[in-house]
Amino acid sequence: MVIADLGCSSGPTALGAVSEIINMVNAKCRKMEGHPSSPKFMVFLNDLPGNDFNGVFGSLSNFQKKLTEEKGGESCSCFIAGLPGSFYGRLLPNKSLHFVHSSSSLHWLSQVPAGLDDKDNAKMLNKGKIYMSMTSPNEVINAYKLQFRKDFLLFLKCRAEEVISGRRMVLTFMGRRSNDPTSSEDNFYPWELIAKSFNSMVSEGLIEEDKLDCFNVPYYAPCLEEVKQLVKEESSFFGHRFEAVEVEWDGDVKLSNNQSDEHSLCKAALAKGERVAKIHRAVVESMLERYFGKIVMDDLFQRYTKILEDHFTNNPNNSTMISLVVSLIRN
Amino acid sequence: MVIADLGCSSGPTALGAVSEIINMVNAKCRKMEGHPSSPKFMVFLNDLPGNDFNGVFGSLSNFQKKLTEEKGGESCSCFIAGLPGSFYGRLLPNKSLHFVHSSSSLHWLSQVPAGLDDKDNAKMLNKGKIYMSMTSPNEVINAYKLQFRKDFLLFLKCRAEEVISGRRMVLTFMGRRSNDPTSSEDNFYPWELIAKSFNSMVSEGLIEEDKLDCFNVPYYAPCLEEVKQLVKEESSFFGHRFEAVEVEWDGDVKLSNNQSDEHSLCKAALAKGERVAKIHRAVVESMLERYFGKIVMDDLFQRYTKILEDHFTNNPNNSTMISLVVSLIRN
Repeated sequence: MVIADLGCSSGPTALGAVSEIINMVNAKCRKMEGHPSSPKFMVFLNDLPGNDFNGVFGSLSNFQKKLTEEKGGESCSCFIAGLPGSFYGRLLPNKSLHFVHSSSSLHWLSQVPAGLDDKDNAKMLNKGKIYMSMTSPNEVINAYKLQFRKDFLLFLKCRAEEVISGRRMVLTFMGRRSNDPTSSEDNFYPWELIAKSFNSMVSEGLIEEDKLDCFNVPYYAPCLEEVKQLVKEESSFFGHRFEAVEVEWDGDVKLSNNQSDEHSLCKAALAKGERVAKIHRAVVESMLERYFGKIVMDDLFQRYTKILEDHFTNNPNNSTMISLVVSLIRN
Repeated sequence: MVIADLGCSSGPTALGAVSEIINMVNAKCRKMEGHPSSPKFMVFLNDLPGNDFNGVFGSLSNFQKKLTEEKGGESCSCFIAGLPGSFYGRLLPNKSLHFVHSSSSLHWLSQVPAGLDDKDNAKMLNKGKIYMSMTSPNEVINAYKLQFRKDFLLFLKCRAEEVISGRRMVLTFMGRRSNDPTSSEDNFYPWELIAKSFNSMVSEGLIEEDKLDCFNVPYYAPCLEEVKQLVKEESSFFGHRFEAVEVEWDGDVKLSNNQSDEHSLCKAALAKGERVAKIHRAVVESMLERYFGKIVMDDLFQRYTKILEDHFTNNPNNSTMISLVVSLIRN
């Protein structure tokens, strides 16, 4: 069974999805009549060439040990390779994959949307913002929509060549509620609040205004309908399931009822602000650092923590985002 | 066409063999009647998990550009994955490989020979030496012979599962001339001279005598007959070609005739000493450093350079080693 995890990243989560997949297949085999032996796995861990594959490879021996433990001491045949490259391009030979997984990656575009990658355009169209916002003009919204459309169609086309007929892809990535990106139903708060942190640094002369005005993130959170439409249009995959799931900004932790008095809420908001800031920092820092420089990052995320704490204090119930879960079968 | 390069290492040479192989296959296709289109390549670059795969992956975009240039601008379908793990174990699924290449790797044993990995044994049997030498007792010679036998048989067994019937492995690794490892035909000068460098540091109190006495390198240079015998014994591969090639210690440069007067010879010996020391340092430093510590490495290789210069001055013609070239076809 040949599996690819696209956008595996590095660190403790890099092998998490693969571990889940293998354990689920093994458990399924055990439950089947006649107990067929588990398949041998060939796993391709993909990310951009700049990903810390050395770190991932360094953790493989522990991973293999754990797999064996989880199989009750029986050794699990699992061959693992690192596959550097952009998933907006071909990664593997034709008809070579039985299962593709990608988590929290497809909201990253292949580039800053065409049009906004021009400095003068960016400054004129999206001043003080770093992503589309409720007040962004149509040009900005369309640039983001079009770049996602181009990237996602290319992603489907490349995978269509690689995935064996009848086999499946499961993709999860950030999305939004409404079809209309300017709808008040959707807030793009994390990016808005990061932009607010940047703007406070601009106002203190710590970052040049011009530098911030030229910057837009290569990120897009589509609505479910948009994704369905593109899958249909590209036509190589059958859309088996499309779901939009509400997730907390920090993953899954919600304020529990016994924290409902004002003091507890405030304490929880502070703790949550710090936690969310740390999680978001882990995700976006390397991208921001490349453009703004390492030197401003500590200050930026201290401000972001403070801004998040205020946000959670004032809006204790406004801290969820939409994650899309898409299951596709190759025709 | 699925290719594995086992022991690819990192740095500028990491993609050298793969590049040669792909260009040769492409050239062969061009020359064939009817010009069949070149195959698509899936390349697995293997080395131990501690290898600098990040560095290798960082050079892939240049490599792909060069491949395209060499194909006259036509894009070459070549998918590249890193495959971390010991080749003295399984690396890939059954019957998955069309061609295996390994250069300058199979003389590295999976461990210090069993028996010599015990400190007291090592001290007693091979004092002041770091590899088998003409004066080593039989126990040392046999420990090395047996470890190579075990490792090489395991290597063949693992590859036998992975290589498709009728497909080939080409292996090159260091060897020796004579069947008898204590024969004067074979000198193990590089290791002898590195041991001499270590011993000079011991005599100055810079390295503990005990530490050196316990150390033996996990390296073995077999003779051609030994390799032939093991291939026959394991029996999965047909030995298509076995060759022993004489190579200079620094690769391929020989003292030319116009450097035959004494002054030139001496100058050449100095230059060659430095060059050879640098080449050997690149190969063995990381292994020595793990045991003796980074801090003694500069001093060690300065001494080694001086010892090599003396050696080349006194023995201008004694600077070749044997490289074995083995081509095997899976039955």
